[in-house]
Amino acid sequence: MAKTNWLTNAEMLAWRGFIERSADLINIIDKDLEPYGLDGGDYQLLAMLSEAPEHKMKMCDLAQTLGLSRSGLTRRMEGVLKAKYVSRVGDQNDRRAAFAQITKKGLTLIKKVAPHHVASVRRHMIDILSPVEITAFGTGFAKIGKRLSQKTKI
Amino acid sequence: MAKTNWLTNAEMLAWRGFIERSADLINIIDKDLEPYGLDGGDYQLLAMLSEAPEHKMKMCDLAQTLGLSRSGLTRRMEGVLKAKYVSRVGDQNDRRAAFAQITKKGLTLIKKVAPHHVASVRRHMIDILSPVEITAFGTGFAKIGKRLSQKTKI
Repeated sequence: MAKTNWLTNAEMLAWRGFIERSADLINIIDKDLEPYGLDGGDYQLLAMLSEAPEHKMKMCDLAQTLGLSRSGLTRRMEGVLKAKYVSRVGDQNDRRAAFAQITKKGLTLIKKVAPHHVASVRRHMIDILSPVEITAFGTGFAKIGKRLSQKTKI
Repeated sequence: MAKTNWLTNAEMLAWRGFIERSADLINIIDKDLEPYGLDGGDYQLLAMLSEAPEHKMKMCDLAQTLGLSRSGLTRRMEGVLKAKYVSRVGDQNDRRAAFAQITKKGLTLIKKVAPHHVASVRRHMIDILSPVEITAFGTGFAKIGKRLSQKTKI
């Protein structure tokens, strides 16, 4: 192996900050969702469907956007299907296409939870960061995501 | 509840970038450690002990630094104790104090794995980011960590 290009101090702070804090950050925001019977993954799924045209998305697009395999998406959806926040629908023009659609019950819930969730995200993350940090998180994770999707094509 | 302060576009990019990509980023770097029989948590533990004075740390300090409960740390250490990369040692001056110490076998392993792990962290994250983003990730996650530790005192 070639000579190791060790991390500089600044790089070490970026990497260790991310790896040591990201799980805790996700957990604490998840915990704020618990009173509503949701976890962060449920919320993300409901939010995406609520913003989609006709409140529905193709299962394969949903899996790709959430970075899940089809079986991973099936597991991910178990809770929200059982609670009737989401239903599976077919497409009359394409019998092979399966869609997930957020129900009225799901829409009512997400509308109720969203203000609390946004406040939680602000409190634990967004309002702590400077405008420069906000921009850098946005562009940085977009680049990381682009690289990840080049490596993990579904 | 007061009027909701919804996220701006830039804030949404920062939050969604983080929440949609961080698990995938952690997983892909974990995957690069698999050939060495370690996961990311094992690596982090071994790296911290290898850098500590006398290669050992108090269990309670280790738990706090890793953001784990004592029982969480016990579970976290099962694999590396079994593989004899880490041993538990007492303190002759303080019988109540329990330490975790990295063994010679553990030090040999971490020395072998470190260059590959650093290359993996560079490839998936650090080398993709600009210097401004690197600095912002460092300062941003430090602030997030500080806020988290105010809320979750052990």
